[in-house]
Amino acid sequence: MNEFVHLRHKPPTTLEQPRELILAMPQMRSNVNVARIVRAAACSGVGTVIACGNVKIDPKISREAEQHLDLQIRRSLLPVLKKLKDEGFPLIGLEQTSNSDNIHDYIFPHKCVLIIGHERNGITEDVLQILDATLEIPVWGMPFSYNVATATCMALYEYCRQYPGG
Amino acid sequence: MNEFVHLRHKPPTTLEQPRELILAMPQMRSNVNVARIVRAAACSGVGTVIACGNVKIDPKISREAEQHLDLQIRRSLLPVLKKLKDEGFPLIGLEQTSNSDNIHDYIFPHKCVLIIGHERNGITEDVLQILDATLEIPVWGMPFSYNVATATCMALYEYCRQYPGG
Repeated sequence: MNEFVHLRHKPPTTLEQPRELILAMPQMRSNVNVARIVRAAACSGVGTVIACGNVKIDPKISREAEQHLDLQIRRSLLPVLKKLKDEGFPLIGLEQTSNSDNIHDYIFPHKCVLIIGHERNGITEDVLQILDATLEIPVWGMPFSYNVATATCMALYEYCRQYPGG
Repeated sequence: MNEFVHLRHKPPTTLEQPRELILAMPQMRSNVNVARIVRAAACSGVGTVIACGNVKIDPKISREAEQHLDLQIRRSLLPVLKKLKDEGFPLIGLEQTSNSDNIHDYIFPHKCVLIIGHERNGITEDVLQILDATLEIPVWGMPFSYNVATATCMALYEYCRQYPGG
């Protein structure tokens, strides 16, 4: 018979190299979602998160994760994405589009920017136009849409599954 | 050049058979977490969620997902888990333990119960004793622990990745 003893403070997994994944989002509707995403990103070992507009992180929700990564606040998303694209980062949008790949079948570029959309409006048209790929997470049941933080956590999980060492 | 046109109402993926995954949780600290988990479960095509105690689902958070699956509210978790185990459902706990498997390397039984723990206390000792396996999700950075709804969404994602057809 198995014995399972709860371990409260297991040491984290070690990255062999810093993650080359950058997470980027526009101004979001809910700062709760932003805080949840920042916590998940920090736990996943992501070093840089770009957020836009009037960002206020509730440290009770984020568990102060914003202190453990580089959280860059921009006025808008397009300029920094163009700059990153010029620096060789493929831009991968998490969005259902006419041409989106199923994330189950997708191999992430090791170095890339994962872009998520606004809760209601998704990824804006100007950003969609410069993306290199769009990914969708299959949905099987009502209400037919994942919360944005939920979807982001799933995508972070998939990236980390593909690159557990960083 | 790729063209990505945002699709707002893409049809969901079809299950070839009902999911044999049941999601079960003890009384949680936060009904917000419960609502988020129920929404993610319903979107993932999970048919049955077992929750305990004083459950109140905020339909603005769940997007009324609780109307699209069988949400069973129990007084406590142990009796129903014992019953399900007797019915042939392996019990898989999402918990860091002395003996937990890395979820990246784990093949879920098709038919199983995924058990999640309380936000602070995790899975209780009495439940741990009857589990067939415990799974941990690797964590790479501070604050070194995923929110319970985040971890649940990642585990749901992994199960569905392994069984996209149900």
